[in-house]
Amino acid sequence: MSNNFSPGRACPVDQVPRWDLVTDVAVVGFGAAGSCVAIEARGAGAQVDVFEVASAPGGSASLSGGEVYVGGSGGTEVQREHGFADETDDLRQYLLMAGGPTADADRVGLYAAQAAAHFSWLRAQGVPFKGTYLPGKWIEPPTDDTLIWSGNEQAWPFSAKAKPAPRGHTVEFEGWGGGQLLMEKLCARALALGATAHYNSRALCLITDDNGAVKGLVVRREGQELFVQARSGVVLCAGGFIANRDMVARHAPEALVCEHQVTAGNDDGSGIRMGISVGATTLNMQEFFATLPFFPPESLIKGIFINERGQRFINEDTYHGRVAHYVLRQPNGRAWLLVDNDIFDRPLLQPDITVAAVGDTWDEVEQELALEPGSLTATVAEFNRQARAGQDPYFHKHAGWLRPLLSPPFAALSYCRGDIEGHAFTLGGLATRPTGEVLNADGQIISGLYAAGRTACGLPRWGEGYSSGLSLGDSTFFGRQAGRSAANAGAP
Amino acid sequence: MSNNFSPGRACPVDQVPRWDLVTDVAVVGFGAAGSCVAIEARGAGAQVDVFEVASAPGGSASLSGGEVYVGGSGGTEVQREHGFADETDDLRQYLLMAGGPTADADRVGLYAAQAAAHFSWLRAQGVPFKGTYLPGKWIEPPTDDTLIWSGNEQAWPFSAKAKPAPRGHTVEFEGWGGGQLLMEKLCARALALGATAHYNSRALCLITDDNGAVKGLVVRREGQELFVQARSGVVLCAGGFIANRDMVARHAPEALVCEHQVTAGNDDGSGIRMGISVGATTLNMQEFFATLPFFPPESLIKGIFINERGQRFINEDTYHGRVAHYVLRQPNGRAWLLVDNDIFDRPLLQPDITVAAVGDTWDEVEQELALEPGSLTATVAEFNRQARAGQDPYFHKHAGWLRPLLSPPFAALSYCRGDIEGHAFTLGGLATRPTGEVLNADGQIISGLYAAGRTACGLPRWGEGYSSGLSLGDSTFFGRQAGRSAANAGAP
Repeated sequence: MSNNFSPGRACPVDQVPRWDLVTDVAVVGFGAAGSCVAIEARGAGAQVDVFEVASAPGGSASLSGGEVYVGGSGGTEVQREHGFADETDDLRQYLLMAGGPTADADRVGLYAAQAAAHFSWLRAQGVPFKGTYLPGKWIEPPTDDTLIWSGNEQAWPFSAKAKPAPRGHTVEFEGWGGGQLLMEKLCARALALGATAHYNSRALCLITDDNGAVKGLVVRREGQELFVQARSGVVLCAGGFIANRDMVARHAPEALVCEHQVTAGNDDGSGIRMGISVGATTLNMQEFFATLPFFPPESLIKGIFINERGQRFINEDTYHGRVAHYVLRQPNGRAWLLVDNDIFDRPLLQPDITVAAVGDTWDEVEQELALEPGSLTATVAEFNRQARAGQDPYFHKHAGWLRPLLSPPFAALSYCRGDIEGHAFTLGGLATRPTGEVLNADGQIISGLYAAGRTACGLPRWGEGYSSGLSLGDSTFFGRQAGRSAANAGAP
Repeated sequence: MSNNFSPGRACPVDQVPRWDLVTDVAVVGFGAAGSCVAIEARGAGAQVDVFEVASAPGGSASLSGGEVYVGGSGGTEVQREHGFADETDDLRQYLLMAGGPTADADRVGLYAAQAAAHFSWLRAQGVPFKGTYLPGKWIEPPTDDTLIWSGNEQAWPFSAKAKPAPRGHTVEFEGWGGGQLLMEKLCARALALGATAHYNSRALCLITDDNGAVKGLVVRREGQELFVQARSGVVLCAGGFIANRDMVARHAPEALVCEHQVTAGNDDGSGIRMGISVGATTLNMQEFFATLPFFPPESLIKGIFINERGQRFINEDTYHGRVAHYVLRQPNGRAWLLVDNDIFDRPLLQPDITVAAVGDTWDEVEQELALEPGSLTATVAEFNRQARAGQDPYFHKHAGWLRPLLSPPFAALSYCRGDIEGHAFTLGGLATRPTGEVLNADGQIISGLYAAGRTACGLPRWGEGYSSGLSLGDSTFFGRQAGRSAANAGAP
């Protein structure tokens, strides 16, 4: 028996010395995806054992805002109550755009059709949503309200192709951090239904038979190796790889600019690596969520971003994560938010932002930034002229956020590399069907293996298209699909 | 025995009914990488069998210009003869930049140190190089000359960090298409040394043992399945995946804009898929080489590219493939090359380029393109002012290519999506050590498996950093490393 088990290499079943535990569905990770796998697999009558490396349930979702991106079907209960008729086709079209060039139409179609019902399901599991609507532009609601605008719905080019609706549904929790409550409820539900959770239990590698089918996994618990047979399937819900700096450097090096990793610490890519070990193909490993939260206060959205050439490059009213990706890719990592006295306030999340230049005229600001003469001033003059007319012909910033920058003093807030604190997590992962079945490089199913959450490449797969709530929506919904698929694979 | 062999799924060795052929080193693909694998593995005394799906040797390299990117060590024989002292450290620094954010320092270091010797080696294999130098800016030499400037060496930001030298070394062949001669010589050499080539032989899948080690491969030849045992190793040199439209859509969808695939037809990703089937990790699957060859004539380099916002976005004197990537990513796929009467000539490779606007003033051109009033004219006015002073403060176009655009009539050549013909091939592939050993997701070696050429993620791994000759240089050099590694793996 080898002691060198590692996620990148599967263990052949004929080298398994004994089965320490036999179950139907073995789940790796007890976070947003894993808990929903467990709930549905138990509902389908399967024996379910969940292996969680941490000493407590919840995973990285516990640290989130507890916001779920749902809509369609004419609106969730909450959307309808507040007058937002959200058609399935608008949600579908929005999610296709949000998924970027490699959006998965099958996955998007299923989600769009069933997301409103999924919201009701979450409530039925005991997750509390107050049912109220909070207008305005927020990153997360600072209140216990439910419905917020949490993505790019009202911003070009999304707004031009899909009728906007607010779709962020946040757990009833005062302030930020509702993810903890969400996960308490989902994990408690899974346990109440009879799933068995094993904590401090690290999945070391998959076990495969001669035909490449997954038969179980090796787990380390209290220094001992456990050989776990999964009669119906193994479901990988072990998160992404933002906490594995080697993997980030290899696959998504640009994410290294963001110093804050959005993770509870165990997004080490082991789920993805276990999938790769049995021939799974990966998708979009270079993609990541990033944010440089430059608002609230929302008045700052009325400012304009420029790069070192004095050029604008984005409509500033898009989702903050989309703005972040555009900021991060500007030449030499240099960008500034230009504001005037009327809209200036310190950004809530980074109040010590560097004010790179202040002046009574834009000329002074340009000089202080040491930009080429005329570069910034020409851009501001043109923007002001167009904003006065309520137009933004290049970037299509919504008229509601358009106003000329006329009230001195003027300032440039630095979003240059080194001056900013970014937050990131990875979006690439295993290729799966909407059922959670993991695919090999020829697009064929790998028998006995499923994945959901950030271990899979899901709905959120393009940094520029992210919306708050998309990862929790995807993880919980497709976790459910994977749980049902795995349980049914073992049905007679 | 199953007839459903496919690259995405390995065949277990205990399902092999018989060994039809036993060799030391089995090579998949008889192109630039495969031929050099064969030469070195034979040199190390191994029995070598090469399986080529086409009916003739050469692979996609046969369709190339036959240009190899080499230098360093104070210069190749040809560089020195023409006065270019090319230090290893400059080549190293250049290749690190060319590799982009995920450049492989080990691979780059080895290549930089040995590239000049590799050029001598190519000559020693019988590949003819005339030894002459052709000044100017060319995509490939139209003559039989050897040394040309074939990358970004003289362009910012490359020129600021590495001392420039011409490094494109082209086979002695009149006109374009020297790749055929290069491949004739290398494949003939491999055969003369005793390698056996099997044509019309498609590798179906790898064969692995219980520990995941690669033991051979299944090949289809004349409708029959051959089970090939490789005592020392299998080397995958089966090219990239540009000819596999499903894979391109899944991994590098932006490459679909380029209608011309740079391939002899068999870059179907099967080599990469075979690697994935045994647990290999992939790198940079989203990256691709692209070109929209807007010159020669080189006078067009003196024009300026703008997008639909009237903004410049690149120094036009960078390598044409780098310009192409910037053009392709402009908003709504719209970009134009602005020229005046003095520099205008029809692009050699696309003489029927759409002339989107002509005018006696830049105002007329702006109106004809229906751009916002002042957007194009302000950019041209600023460019002209700076060019007159010999400066390009934003984009750092080299002074030699800078001149104001003053001679009417003025024109805008369309490089908008739909109006242009692009050429592309993929750069993503299997993760390998410089030795060619293929790596799993934990960075460990997969026993018995090697890869080189575009099946591996090599020196060229970033579309924006490509230089002509980089793929042939990488494929031939690292093919040699893989051939030696595989042969020595079987040594007692």
